[in-house]
Amino acid sequence: MKATAIAPSNIAFTKYWGKKDEVLRLPENGSISMCLSNLLTTTTVEFSPDFKKDEIIINGVDEAGRAIEHLDRVRKLANIDLKAKVVSNNNFPSGTGLSSSASGFAALTLAAAKAAGLNLSEKDLSILARQGAGSACRSIPSGFVEWLDGDTSDTSFAVQIFPPDYWAIADVVAVVSEGKKEVPTSAGHALAQSSPFMPVRLGRMKGKNDLVKRLIKEKNFKEFGELTEAEALELHSIMLTQKPHLIYWTTGTLQIMKLVSHWRAGGLPVYFTVNTGQDIHLICEQENIDKVRAKLKELDFVKDIIVNTPGEGARLVVK
Amino acid sequence: MKATAIAPSNIAFTKYWGKKDEVLRLPENGSISMCLSNLLTTTTVEFSPDFKKDEIIINGVDEAGRAIEHLDRVRKLANIDLKAKVVSNNNFPSGTGLSSSASGFAALTLAAAKAAGLNLSEKDLSILARQGAGSACRSIPSGFVEWLDGDTSDTSFAVQIFPPDYWAIADVVAVVSEGKKEVPTSAGHALAQSSPFMPVRLGRMKGKNDLVKRLIKEKNFKEFGELTEAEALELHSIMLTQKPHLIYWTTGTLQIMKLVSHWRAGGLPVYFTVNTGQDIHLICEQENIDKVRAKLKELDFVKDIIVNTPGEGARLVVK
Repeated sequence: MKATAIAPSNIAFTKYWGKKDEVLRLPENGSISMCLSNLLTTTTVEFSPDFKKDEIIINGVDEAGRAIEHLDRVRKLANIDLKAKVVSNNNFPSGTGLSSSASGFAALTLAAAKAAGLNLSEKDLSILARQGAGSACRSIPSGFVEWLDGDTSDTSFAVQIFPPDYWAIADVVAVVSEGKKEVPTSAGHALAQSSPFMPVRLGRMKGKNDLVKRLIKEKNFKEFGELTEAEALELHSIMLTQKPHLIYWTTGTLQIMKLVSHWRAGGLPVYFTVNTGQDIHLICEQENIDKVRAKLKELDFVKDIIVNTPGEGARLVVK
Repeated sequence: MKATAIAPSNIAFTKYWGKKDEVLRLPENGSISMCLSNLLTTTTVEFSPDFKKDEIIINGVDEAGRAIEHLDRVRKLANIDLKAKVVSNNNFPSGTGLSSSASGFAALTLAAAKAAGLNLSEKDLSILARQGAGSACRSIPSGFVEWLDGDTSDTSFAVQIFPPDYWAIADVVAVVSEGKKEVPTSAGHALAQSSPFMPVRLGRMKGKNDLVKRLIKEKNFKEFGELTEAEALELHSIMLTQKPHLIYWTTGTLQIMKLVSHWRAGGLPVYFTVNTGQDIHLICEQENIDKVRAKLKELDFVKDIIVNTPGEGARLVVK
């Protein structure tokens, strides 16, 4: 009753912000993302009658609460009552906008389900992962992914729209972290509706998602990049106009956002997107990875550069 | 036929962004501001038959275009055909978000009108100043000012709502300039309607202006500060979601925006507002000026601190 899973973080081209059901983590809108090949969480779960209580070791820190709630969901599905030991490691910083909760809860979902003896479909794994952390549902399938806009738990899950090798684009992450973000994502989510602009945003999301899917299908990088960047700024405009306002950018984020426009004006096709944190994702075609990396290397405040291509979803590690 | 005028910049608590008439500079919405006691432009205008062409000397730089167009308006009103010499100096940086066009065109309006022999009312001066630079109309009256939401040139002007000594608040400006802004305000204005959120904003402005006036009247500093800060972020959210997007903040702006929240959490009642530029205005009660200044002095990237109280509007200098 022990299993290890690896799951990727994902980068959303259209964002998840605001929930229509807090408990079930049903988002206000569907979203489109890509699994990231090099932002990974590896998680081992073991259930045993020898354990007296759940033990959760996340990157060496015990962050028990949400993980234990998630184990409870798995135990309920598997109809078992055993305590578990969970050991989880990220190969990247957490709490800085790289969506470690997505990779973390996707890996936990798959490892725990397997260790509990469940044999779940990709759809059921995605539904289960979503209940741990919304965007984790997008880290179950591989490649380019859509989180369907369902109104019930059974219809709110992620599916692959294109496999990883469909389109040779990349996400070059610039780590500019100056410590963890001050406001956890989940606290900000709950106040999305306090922005006067939220109804306008929600009215636009279906059309925006349809357009992103078409642009990926057509491999129209310019329009795809423009839409991705505008969507990130729209998300952050919602957060800036919430009560209280949320500012996730740091000086490094802002500098790179402005530099990207200059680099583009200089002939390098690259666009940014930013999640709820300071680290910034630069989207480019794979042929331009070296150029983007070279630009970032010139910046002394960039602490790390992580190059991602469209990656595999959550998978078991067979030892 | 020579006159000198001094006019203040002003800080808008509710902002002017977007025009319903480009040529007449009629704004999409009314706005509320305060004249600033220590951000001043001094302008001397002389009309003479000896001059062969208009000569415009603005802080030593010849920026002829808009100023000459404005002289033409004055010449038309006065029915004269003389060329002019204009010498204008700001006591503060221009093109960094301190609204030098407001003080500049207010001073030019008053000095040119007087030099041309016109005897205009405050209302007529405000209407004339508006045609040079929209927010200049708010720098004609003294103290707390409302730019009325008129649909015609004759009804779009600024009036005093409270005199300078009505409320002892201050605007402590932090100069964080790293050079002039990349996009002139007027270019950004023209694209306001490209933000999907602009219609929502416009639908809220009348109520917001009524509320600001009431909060000033009641001297309710906390709610006034909250509204001012939220309005600044709403303005910048519009600019972030325009096509192309506009980012006027620099790293210094962003750092102070975040610090203000911390200072407030620490018990200092201070709020920020930002115009179309990087320099940032900290609004506080006058009894807290020294505390705000001390906080800013700790920041090595703050190049200058300019303390303003509610100031006089445009006035002639009699030598």
